Amino acid sequence: MTVDMEIICVGNELLIGKTVNTNAHWMGKQATNIGANVKRITVVQDVVEEIAKVTCEALQRKPQFIVTSGGLGPTFDDKTLEGIAKALNRKLEINPKALEMVKARYVEIAKRWNQPMSEMTAARVKMATLPVKTEPIDNPVGTAPGVRADLDGTVLFALPGVPAEMEAIFTQTIAPLLKQAVGDRVFCEKSMFLEGIMESRLAPLINRVMSANSGVYIKSHPMGAESKPCIEAHLTISGSPEEKPMEKLVKAMKELAGLVEADGGKAIAQQ
Amino acid sequence: MTVDMEIICVGNELLIGKTVNTNAHWMGKQATNIGANVKRITVVQDVVEEIAKVTCEALQRKPQFIVTSGGLGPTFDDKTLEGIAKALNRKLEINPKALEMVKARYVEIAKRWNQPMSEMTAARVKMATLPVKTEPIDNPVGTAPGVRADLDGTVLFALPGVPAEMEAIFTQTIAPLLKQAVGDRVFCEKSMFLEGIMESRLAPLINRVMSANSGVYIKSHPMGAESKPCIEAHLTISGSPEEKPMEKLVKAMKELAGLVEADGGKAIAQQ
Repeated sequence: MTVDMEIICVGNELLIGKTVNTNAHWMGKQATNIGANVKRITVVQDVVEEIAKVTCEALQRKPQFIVTSGGLGPTFDDKTLEGIAKALNRKLEINPKALEMVKARYVEIAKRWNQPMSEMTAARVKMATLPVKTEPIDNPVGTAPGVRADLDGTVLFALPGVPAEMEAIFTQTIAPLLKQAVGDRVFCEKSMFLEGIMESRLAPLINRVMSANSGVYIKSHPMGAESKPCIEAHLTISGSPEEKPMEKLVKAMKELAGLVEADGGKAIAQQ
Repeated sequence: MTVDMEIICVGNELLIGKTVNTNAHWMGKQATNIGANVKRITVVQDVVEEIAKVTCEALQRKPQFIVTSGGLGPTFDDKTLEGIAKALNRKLEINPKALEMVKARYVEIAKRWNQPMSEMTAARVKMATLPVKTEPIDNPVGTAPGVRADLDGTVLFALPGVPAEMEAIFTQTIAPLLKQAVGDRVFCEKSMFLEGIMESRLAPLINRVMSANSGVYIKSHPMGAESKPCIEAHLTISGSPEEKPMEKLVKAMKELAGLVEADGGKAIAQQ
C-alpha cells in the first residue's frame, strides 16, 4: 500500500538562509527507506496564521502522515502548537501527562547539576500546553514533548526542531508506525556514475531503459557542467520482496551501462 | 516596501533524502540579505500535476516573486515548464529566442571539444520549449535557459536545479530586480552565544528586550541540550537606513547580554 507523508518545517531560520534544512532531509530519507512516499515538504515562518494555513492545506490533501518539526520550545516564537490548534479549531490546554513529562525532565536536570528543582515557569508550562484531544509523546533527549493528533485519515505528529530531539522521537515513535502502515513494501536505490556523455544524449537512453524495466525510475543528476559532463544516474524502485525489486534495479542498471558504453561513455557502478 | 517571495523546489531527490536542499537555503539567504521577505519554501515531486498545483497555490497568495528551481533539463523527469504551463493554462511552444540560446551553447561546447556541432535532438529542443508568453533568461553557465513569466502582480522565475546554474541566473537577473523592488530597505543580523542559561529561563529575558526594542526580532537556537545549554541568540531587523537598524540591533544585543549576565550566564558576541 502506498503511504503518503508530508513534512512541514516551521522556522524563520530556514527561510532566511540561516539554517540548512537538514531535518527535512533526514526525515525524507528515513521515511523513504521505510517505504513511505514523501510527497511534499513545506517550510513556513514562525507565524500562527501561516502554520495554521499550511496545516489545513496539508490535511486537505489527506496524506496518511504529516510530520512537523520546529516551534515546540519555551520561547515566544515557538508557535507550532498554537498554529495546529487553530488549524484544528481546538483550544490549547495544559495537558497533565505532558506537564508530568516536562517536570520530570527538569527534576532530572536539577539532579544532574545537584541543584534544587527550579520552578515550572510560564515558559516551561508552555511546552505542556497542547491542543485539546492530542497526545504528548516522550522526548527521550529534550524537554519539549512531541505531540500526536489522530485526525480523519491522517496522523499528525509535531516534533521539536532540535535535530537530536526530532531524530530521537521519529526513530522511537514514528518509524515503527510508518513501517506498520507500509507493510512489507521496500525501497531500493542504486547509483552509477557516467562520464563522457552529455545529459541531453543520455536522456533517450534513460527513456529506453525505463520503458523496458517497469517500476524502475531513473533520474540523472549532472555533477560537472554539460560541457564537461559527469552524471550520476540514480535508480530507484519500490515493491514487495516477492517482486524482487533489487534484481530489477540491477538489471536496469546493467542495461543503462551497456547503452552508455556503446555510445562511447564510461559507466562506474557505485559499490 | 515589503517584498514577499516564495521558493518552489522541484525534485524527488529532495523528498527522498538523497540531496540536501542547499538551493532553497542559498536563495533564501540572498533574497533576505537584499531585504525581501521569504515567506514559504515548497518542495514537490517531479510530477506535472503536483508542480501545477503548487504553482497555482503560490500564485493565489500573490507574492511579488516566485522562484522555482529544478526540472528544466533535457530528461523525461524535467517537468517544471509543463507544470507551470498547466498552472497558467497556457500551451508549451518552441520559443525561438530560447532555441537560439540552447543552440549557441552546444556550438560553444562543440568548439571547445573541437568537434562538429551535434544535432539539436528532441531532448535539447525540450529545453527551449516554454509556456507561451514567457521569456527565456540567459543561463551564463549551462544549457537550459531560465524562464520568466510576468503575471498578475507576480513575477515568476523558473531556474535550473544545478546549483552553479541557479546561482548564476539568480545573481545576474533576479537579484537586481529584487533590489529594485525592495528599495533602500536593509536587513541586519547579529549573533550572540549564551552559556550557562537554559532556554526556558532565557525566554522571558528575550520578551523583555523585544518589548523595549521595537522592530528587533530575537530567536534562540539551542545548540547543546537543555541540560547543558549553549544557545545562539540570533537578532534580526529590517528597515531603511534612516531608521538606523544596525544601531537598534546592537543596543538590543547589549541589553540581552546584560540580562543574561545578571542571571549568572555568559554572553559572547559574534565578531
